[in-house]
Amino acid sequence: MKVLITGGGGFLGQKLAHALASRGTLRGHTISELILADLAAPDSFDAPFTVTGVAVDITDRAAVDTLMAGRPDVIYHLAAIVSGQAEAEFDTGLAINLFGTLNLLEAARAQGSHPVFVFASSIAVYGGEIPDPIEDWTALNPQTSYGTQKAASELLLNDFSRKGFLDGRGLRLPTITVRPGKANKAASSFMSSIFREPLQGDEAICPVPADYTHWFLSPRRCIDNLIHGAEVEASALGENRCFALPGRTHKIGDMVEAMRRVAGDDPVNLIRWEPDETIQNIVLGWKAHFKPEKALKLGFVSDETFEDNIRFFLEDDIQPKR
Amino acid sequence: MKVLITGGGGFLGQKLAHALASRGTLRGHTISELILADLAAPDSFDAPFTVTGVAVDITDRAAVDTLMAGRPDVIYHLAAIVSGQAEAEFDTGLAINLFGTLNLLEAARAQGSHPVFVFASSIAVYGGEIPDPIEDWTALNPQTSYGTQKAASELLLNDFSRKGFLDGRGLRLPTITVRPGKANKAASSFMSSIFREPLQGDEAICPVPADYTHWFLSPRRCIDNLIHGAEVEASALGENRCFALPGRTHKIGDMVEAMRRVAGDDPVNLIRWEPDETIQNIVLGWKAHFKPEKALKLGFVSDETFEDNIRFFLEDDIQPKR
Repeated sequence: MKVLITGGGGFLGQKLAHALASRGTLRGHTISELILADLAAPDSFDAPFTVTGVAVDITDRAAVDTLMAGRPDVIYHLAAIVSGQAEAEFDTGLAINLFGTLNLLEAARAQGSHPVFVFASSIAVYGGEIPDPIEDWTALNPQTSYGTQKAASELLLNDFSRKGFLDGRGLRLPTITVRPGKANKAASSFMSSIFREPLQGDEAICPVPADYTHWFLSPRRCIDNLIHGAEVEASALGENRCFALPGRTHKIGDMVEAMRRVAGDDPVNLIRWEPDETIQNIVLGWKAHFKPEKALKLGFVSDETFEDNIRFFLEDDIQPKR
Repeated sequence: MKVLITGGGGFLGQKLAHALASRGTLRGHTISELILADLAAPDSFDAPFTVTGVAVDITDRAAVDTLMAGRPDVIYHLAAIVSGQAEAEFDTGLAINLFGTLNLLEAARAQGSHPVFVFASSIAVYGGEIPDPIEDWTALNPQTSYGTQKAASELLLNDFSRKGFLDGRGLRLPTITVRPGKANKAASSFMSSIFREPLQGDEAICPVPADYTHWFLSPRRCIDNLIHGAEVEASALGENRCFALPGRTHKIGDMVEAMRRVAGDDPVNLIRWEPDETIQNIVLGWKAHFKPEKALKLGFVSDETFEDNIRFFLEDDIQPKR
């Protein structure tokens, strides 16, 4: 069992790689090799199988063919440029998020080995005037270039699967929180930083009111779902291999109170509530209510409560001040 | 007002060209030039404006840039390979139906003149396990490569519009009947030929039972809708510029009775009912029930009765035996 992860140097790629190392198996087979591909070659690490870091530009079809030459049995395609960058750099977004995905699909097809292909899509495929809550058969109506590129990739993944070129599974990730690491320029960055920074002893700014509501999943449950995404039976997927993952709808104020219950008043007092119109203009358009019935029926999971998200961060990811 | 039609040599392209010649105007402006582009240069014809036929391969971006150099104000993108060919020749379908469309979008964007871009999409974007009837916010779930390529093109059209690169409008055409000309190898071919051939004095075979039900529009009303598609106000289109056109749900048996009411028993007696499992396997998966509320609100039209479809064929297209 050979596994390839694109975006293998990223936050989810690294967590997935280490989860695979802990398990040692996937789809009932012992993993013999893991290839981590990213723009810069990710570091190898100790695991019960070979871990190889490879530098690859997925917009280069020849490079992708070389990457795929070992005929991986399972491909996790996590590489993408994020929403903000895809909006600012339209051509780069198309090149990486759509044509990069197509290069991977075509290279997998060319190998002829019918690999499992797990694609990290996003709830950014939803937007605009669509019914609330979002159900499994609600139209994709992205209002960002990132969401457009993910939605078009999903269509291709489905068609490559229907044609028998590969065995695709497209998982629409909720907003993942609490993410480790540093704040970034994503409009959603605060959805992790208002928990992560205070739990690590630093101040953080919340740019939305306490009643702002959105759709969330913890990193730990996201990794569980990525692994299940490779393992779920193809025959159970029906006529659309792309669907929204389970998550939880939370108000920001309720999430802060959950942090108080787990970690006390001190971190909560480190949050400064400073409304930011620019950020609100973006995130107020995002969808908060989902009925991910297909994913639940297929055995994908969500967190039980937001306390879980806080606890998972404390157990898995906290980087206390030195 | 310069107008460009890709697929300008095809059945709808030719009808649209002649309709524009009859009107002389579009979007309130006098048409000064019409360019008909197709793989083979379409013939020019007498019109109150210049009509130029151009041979172009839309998979060739440089050729598309040359085609677009005159900065057309309105682009009708009708060129595509049909469902059967896109299924048999996967790479050709992707190249023409998806990348050909992207070449036109990119070339229009590069001109910087923000043209109106009317895209002929198809009800083939719907399929698989989706609710019945299909509403404006029902997910696209194509089960053919043709439908996939149309759906992905729609997403790009929407995003190019949202970014302000052009003013896109994507119209999902019902099955168009009664089409003039010859029977072809499309699975839907019988939906025109069982009327066209008998009305022209020839036998035709109906491969489905009389209760087979589908979604139809006449060529005449399709052209009305293509013209309205260029003229409808951009501000009325909302956050999704692609939608199903109006049509009518009919049973084949009722359509045949409509032909009897318009043209008598003789043509009806020329239909031979010979079930064809291969054709039924394809067309029984197609969708028949739609609620195209957005299109109706925007002023797009359907036929009143199937008698209209028959009468329009007799008035516009019949080619009696010599």
